[in-house]
Amino acid sequence: MAVYTDITDEELAELLAEFDLGAPLSFKGIAEGVENSNFLLETDKGRYFLTVYERRVREDDLPFYLGLMRHLAEHGFPCATPIANRAGELIQRVRGKPAAVVSFLPGLSVRRPSAAHCREAGRGLAWLHEAGAGFAMSKENDLGQESWAPLFAGLRPDAERLKPGMADQIESDLARIARDWPRGLPGGVIHADYFPDNVFFQGQAFAGAIDFYFACTDAYAYDIAIALNAWCFEPDGSFNITSARALVAGYEARRPLSSAERRALPILAHGAAMRFFLTRLHDWHATPAGALVRPKDPMEYERKLAVHRSAPDLVLFGEGA
Amino acid sequence: MAVYTDITDEELAELLAEFDLGAPLSFKGIAEGVENSNFLLETDKGRYFLTVYERRVREDDLPFYLGLMRHLAEHGFPCATPIANRAGELIQRVRGKPAAVVSFLPGLSVRRPSAAHCREAGRGLAWLHEAGAGFAMSKENDLGQESWAPLFAGLRPDAERLKPGMADQIESDLARIARDWPRGLPGGVIHADYFPDNVFFQGQAFAGAIDFYFACTDAYAYDIAIALNAWCFEPDGSFNITSARALVAGYEARRPLSSAERRALPILAHGAAMRFFLTRLHDWHATPAGALVRPKDPMEYERKLAVHRSAPDLVLFGEGA
Repeated sequence: MAVYTDITDEELAELLAEFDLGAPLSFKGIAEGVENSNFLLETDKGRYFLTVYERRVREDDLPFYLGLMRHLAEHGFPCATPIANRAGELIQRVRGKPAAVVSFLPGLSVRRPSAAHCREAGRGLAWLHEAGAGFAMSKENDLGQESWAPLFAGLRPDAERLKPGMADQIESDLARIARDWPRGLPGGVIHADYFPDNVFFQGQAFAGAIDFYFACTDAYAYDIAIALNAWCFEPDGSFNITSARALVAGYEARRPLSSAERRALPILAHGAAMRFFLTRLHDWHATPAGALVRPKDPMEYERKLAVHRSAPDLVLFGEGA
Repeated sequence: MAVYTDITDEELAELLAEFDLGAPLSFKGIAEGVENSNFLLETDKGRYFLTVYERRVREDDLPFYLGLMRHLAEHGFPCATPIANRAGELIQRVRGKPAAVVSFLPGLSVRRPSAAHCREAGRGLAWLHEAGAGFAMSKENDLGQESWAPLFAGLRPDAERLKPGMADQIESDLARIARDWPRGLPGGVIHADYFPDNVFFQGQAFAGAIDFYFACTDAYAYDIAIALNAWCFEPDGSFNITSARALVAGYEARRPLSSAERRALPILAHGAAMRFFLTRLHDWHATPAGALVRPKDPMEYERKLAVHRSAPDLVLFGEGA
């Protein structure tokens, strides 16, 4: 949670001069989003978010992300829509950094999702997949299965520092995942970071998704696997089968899974745990002490890896459900 | 800029259950306020701020601060008003910390105030003094003139570390300030931290003040002196007499100064520079490396001290203006 880029009233006025949004009424830095600086902007015309993209988002990828948000919103999916300036541009520039003005999306994220929240989250994810189906652009998953072994090669000493013997265990997981990774599953645009803090509710109902800056083209079922890991583990590390059933049932209420997709869920979930374990492991040791953003504990995902390693059938709860 | 206290959707629901504000529609941590954690809360009924008080605000002082905000708002001054819960209490409790729900105050602060902004800021300060005049409570200024010499006694080595020879210079300033400090000036509730980031504008017009957590009972002209230091120095360290004239003229448009108040401005401004120099000096060395909030540079106020020391007449621009 951080605001890395400081924006003065003069810089804001300069930016707004390019738009037809009226005069600013309030402007506040928001402690939301780890990768970017976010500001809540209220003008005569309504409420908006200004996002300034920091180093971690590649500027070349912005047309994909912003185009996707626009496409989703135009197709009825509840997400923030980028607002074009008078010249028709979605990407602005603030303090030399790329930036975008997007519409405000109301809603609250939940910290400890109930099974009912998981059902709604699943429904929202299927909705996102459907709404994104006609999107013309595509983007490779830079953090997809093929990237994991090369990424881990540089992190072996970090893994051993966390827990002696871990490196060999991860290598063994990587080999199994590479061997069993499914090919040819139905796919398209996926969110790829569909965690509870990126999903909004109004009361108990799904109200939208935010933070599309990991979105890419990959298997839809992989997005479900990411969500199962993110939504259905208890704080004590156990997998909540009731929540997982609810998440998949909510998804299937909009988009039923093929039997191939369903069969693939265990290995996809194992792989999804690997993906977040590896990037957290990387950030854990790469983040300088005293940085504004505290890195997330890789051990949380190491425990999820262990669950999928030892009990892959857990995720197959759905058979006959 | 920081959010120290993390609040879950469940904790928010628990808090809101004590109020008649309806269901939450959105809730965001705000990068505003250095001393507290602030959240922007939207409900069915409107928009509010939730402030969670961190260690630096003494809980015993909250009835004064919140009572003052309520009094000011009831007397037409534009500031956030604390909202009582159903039991009539203004002070809530979140994660064991005191907290308050206040109304949302729109407006933007300016980074580099023009003379026109200074005039409006002066008008707003006089308005605040007038509106606070009938407030029944009082609170000693814990950071008033009598506190400075004892505070500096513990900071001599820190001053010498910043600039050799500085400690004797500060002692000499303190002696002069103690000798010439005015007594018996008109007084009452002052803001005591009336900096540009605590004052809101709509366009060019004063729109309100925030952050009353240094408010206390002291001389009104001392509040003006604090504001002159905070608003009328250029980035290069020079004192902008045009801005200062505008600030005092704006103030006097609502509340004319007595000749005693006017004559006291130079020594009050010297003292006001001392107060902020000393607390910044204290925080500069007391703040651990890598803390969420970067301490403010005491040298900015050391330079202001030097201006008042060498050219006290600068602040007397107002004679005959």
